[in-house]
Amino acid sequence: MPRVVVHVMPKPEILDPQGKAVAAALPRLGFEGIASVRQGKRFELEVEGEVTEQVLATLREAAETLLSNPVIEDVVAIEVEDAAHGKAQA
Amino acid sequence: MPRVVVHVMPKPEILDPQGKAVAAALPRLGFEGIASVRQGKRFELEVEGEVTEQVLATLREAAETLLSNPVIEDVVAIEVEDAAHGKAQA
Repeated sequence: MPRVVVHVMPKPEILDPQGKAVAAALPRLGFEGIASVRQGKRFELEVEGEVTEQVLATLREAAETLLSNPVIEDVVAIEVEDAAHGKAQA
Repeated sequence: MPRVVVHVMPKPEILDPQGKAVAAALPRLGFEGIASVRQGKRFELEVEGEVTEQVLATLREAAETLLSNPVIEDVVAIEVEDAAHGKAQA
């Protein structure tokens, strides 16, 4: 079954308290040299049937309406992963 | 500044209520044909200086201890993104 991976990140101008918390914790745990951290989401969607251009357009719409909040988040990438064909940017 | 992207997903055997909620909402909003959804995390880390093998080993350790909970989550990918060199799997 083909898998579509949707990557969502907070918009650059939006404060990211989770990322800030991770960035602050890293040096305390001995991990130095990280200037900043931002935390977003990764969705893996198992698609029934083939991922056609039309399916992809629908998924892009779902990504921008349901999987992300367009006021504060960007869909930074949508990838199609296929066991047979590997990974492709969409 | 090079960026390292860490991808974290709930382990396959772990229940994922967020993903289940999204999967249930999709058909209600008119998006059909999605068999299942799983929701994970995506971290973007801006690294000071070069991403050497040693830096990457440290980041891998941070990913597996701080960025993910190894009891319920897997670090599924660590990618190095460089403005000059594009994307590479690490």
